[in-house]
Amino acid sequence: MKVAKFGGSSLASAQQVTKVVSIIKDDATRRAIVVSAPGKRSKEDTKVTDLLIELHQAILDQAPTDTLVHAIYQRYVEIGMHFNVETTVLEEIKHDLEQLTLHDEFFTPYFYDRVLASGENNNARLIAAVLNTQQVNARYVSPQELGMLVSEEPQNAQILPEAYKRIAKWQRAEEILVIPGFFGVTKKGEICTFSRGGSDVSGAIVAAGLKVDLYENFTDVDGIFAANPNYVHQPELINELTYREMRELAYAGFGVFHEEALMPSFKAHIPVVIKNTNNPTHPGTKITNQRDTTHQPVVGIASDEGFSMIYISKYLMNREVGFTLRVLKIFETFGLNYEHMPSGIDDISIILRADQLTDVLEEELLRKIAYDIDPDELRITHDLSMVVVVGEGMRQRVGITAESTAALARKQINLEMINQGASEVSIMFGIHKEQEQLAIRNLYYTFFD
Amino acid sequence: MKVAKFGGSSLASAQQVTKVVSIIKDDATRRAIVVSAPGKRSKEDTKVTDLLIELHQAILDQAPTDTLVHAIYQRYVEIGMHFNVETTVLEEIKHDLEQLTLHDEFFTPYFYDRVLASGENNNARLIAAVLNTQQVNARYVSPQELGMLVSEEPQNAQILPEAYKRIAKWQRAEEILVIPGFFGVTKKGEICTFSRGGSDVSGAIVAAGLKVDLYENFTDVDGIFAANPNYVHQPELINELTYREMRELAYAGFGVFHEEALMPSFKAHIPVVIKNTNNPTHPGTKITNQRDTTHQPVVGIASDEGFSMIYISKYLMNREVGFTLRVLKIFETFGLNYEHMPSGIDDISIILRADQLTDVLEEELLRKIAYDIDPDELRITHDLSMVVVVGEGMRQRVGITAESTAALARKQINLEMINQGASEVSIMFGIHKEQEQLAIRNLYYTFFD
Repeated sequence: MKVAKFGGSSLASAQQVTKVVSIIKDDATRRAIVVSAPGKRSKEDTKVTDLLIELHQAILDQAPTDTLVHAIYQRYVEIGMHFNVETTVLEEIKHDLEQLTLHDEFFTPYFYDRVLASGENNNARLIAAVLNTQQVNARYVSPQELGMLVSEEPQNAQILPEAYKRIAKWQRAEEILVIPGFFGVTKKGEICTFSRGGSDVSGAIVAAGLKVDLYENFTDVDGIFAANPNYVHQPELINELTYREMRELAYAGFGVFHEEALMPSFKAHIPVVIKNTNNPTHPGTKITNQRDTTHQPVVGIASDEGFSMIYISKYLMNREVGFTLRVLKIFETFGLNYEHMPSGIDDISIILRADQLTDVLEEELLRKIAYDIDPDELRITHDLSMVVVVGEGMRQRVGITAESTAALARKQINLEMINQGASEVSIMFGIHKEQEQLAIRNLYYTFFD
Repeated sequence: MKVAKFGGSSLASAQQVTKVVSIIKDDATRRAIVVSAPGKRSKEDTKVTDLLIELHQAILDQAPTDTLVHAIYQRYVEIGMHFNVETTVLEEIKHDLEQLTLHDEFFTPYFYDRVLASGENNNARLIAAVLNTQQVNARYVSPQELGMLVSEEPQNAQILPEAYKRIAKWQRAEEILVIPGFFGVTKKGEICTFSRGGSDVSGAIVAAGLKVDLYENFTDVDGIFAANPNYVHQPELINELTYREMRELAYAGFGVFHEEALMPSFKAHIPVVIKNTNNPTHPGTKITNQRDTTHQPVVGIASDEGFSMIYISKYLMNREVGFTLRVLKIFETFGLNYEHMPSGIDDISIILRADQLTDVLEEELLRKIAYDIDPDELRITHDLSMVVVVGEGMRQRVGITAESTAALARKQINLEMINQGASEVSIMFGIHKEQEQLAIRNLYYTFFD
């Protein structure tokens, strides 16, 4: 049994929906569908979610909303008409949109959630109707009906543990379930949206609830590249990677999923496959809890810029009990999150994302460290990038660190930092930003091709 | 101007003292001498300091002390008679020892310090007298007279800042000053000993006070080896290294100095040279604030065993604010000092010295982490060694990390951890203990010979 999630671009037009219909028809084990709101049909297009944000603002401003409502409604009409869906469905959608504008309780904290969620909700209604016209026994299931219970936190819904049990009751449904992504309902029946990852989270929750064998995430790419295609010419696609590997890659700029999106499927040990609606026969990239690393110890090379490093050196530092804690507490006082903290005998470096620092804050921070810690040396380096070599096979292959450092040394790339030993699936190198592209390219050609 | 410190083995016998006399005569710029108590004359011998510890115990026990006093006194007599020193000096020493046993205030916290310090103090008296018989204009200067003022902490004296000014007044002394090492005096006139590093500390303080050009530390070795001679056959001697490099080497098992001993000379920017009393023409190993790294970017390879590593992994760990601090506070609660803390995206490893852990403590610690942190994975690895490649030239030479990791990979040595980025003068590798010797040897042959 599979859950398939379709993103906005997969549902942007009748042409795209036609592909989705044949994907669903192709595999009888696809028993539940999670849908996003219709996305962009072209680069210049506006997606339904953005139109809904405008609509919400217009309602708050008590400005005219007719044109916006019409534009949104037309997106559904365009698809619905193509498939000759029952007119009652389109009427329902129209009614729903009009109800939003009549809402006289727009001051409630859930109103924004309700307006935005309507994009997915109405699309689920529409897609179920489309499938019915194509001889597919499908039904729209609202999150309320499904049992997707969430916490009472507008725009930041957290799934409640009992939701999984409720969703599990739908395992034996005869119809293919068409479920709107992006939101759940509170116990009081309020619509409440997830903070990030939107429909990806919904798909992962449904997959975990129904205990499926595979969660298919349909997008508009064939899968995840082994390196940034802006840096490396036509990098390989990754066939399979683990959740841990994905996290490491995501940390350093691989923005396939929002970090939290896959948590429910990770916890339920359900593999996820990223597939392309426009090329559904391509196997895509599979994300699993474990993989065989024999043939591909390294799975990808990622990088992210915008780091700063504060270096503190003090003779006999490691004789001072609680020294590290004292340093970290200063960072806490300033509300600064640090990412890494390599330590020598008499030195410590604190690496943090530079966007947290202003000139004033930086000056105050350094002054505070100088005053409290009285270091022999104190210095900040800006414009660092973190380059990460990721692969579960690292632990078994002694030479990967050696090959990586050799690749960097050959190009005279200086290492400001190496971080290995915490993560079992990555080595991280801190280098200067201007050498980032060169580093990525050389590491890529060391482990791929 | 130079200060020379002579250790116990350099002053153990008349034969050794003869070498010291000619060293002093050889260089007219040696204007101050700091002496230890007479050391062992052979492997089976007992050094004066150990006899004094016995004496102290006997006094506390109100046991007979005559035999011990005589044995101690004989050590000075043996040397004094050889050089025909004035008998008044030996009488003074005898009187001083007898006074200790008559002391009726042995309950004061400084009594232990006073008994032990007499070893150095009487030796300074003796050596000054010896030098006088050899046509050297020398004089004994007590720490009281010198102005070596220390804090009121028995067995843990800290030098007071004003001491340096007082010592500076002796810069133009006509005689060569012979100063006992190992202790200072409090403002109330009590004798108080340094906690560790004994006479090495005194030498460094005198060097800083007199603002000399060089602090010569005479021992019984030609200098510091670039690697442990138990692991590497006849390793090179280091010509010159910086204080920072020495600290890194000392951390990983190079026990030439106690860590705090050289602090005063480090702060005063005074170079230290380790020389051999038995081979004084050998240039020895020089410790400086800065060195030219052109020819020798790596200065030494050190290692230390007995580390454990606790690995904590939790999906989305880095989204939890203050996560690291929470982990470290658990260690603080258990009174555990950690040495290093490499961090991945969703993982953190804490490396600590294993001698702090008992089976019970370890179990409780892991249970506490499991309970408070709720990790996906939690594991402890024992029997790790830290191998450190040390050299100020590292920053300039891109390839040193690559060469090191390649050397280790060639021998299939798995890296549990790499720590680079805090210290500018070292890379640290965490490996399994059984591979330590192999690692040291291969790293040595990579950078030396």
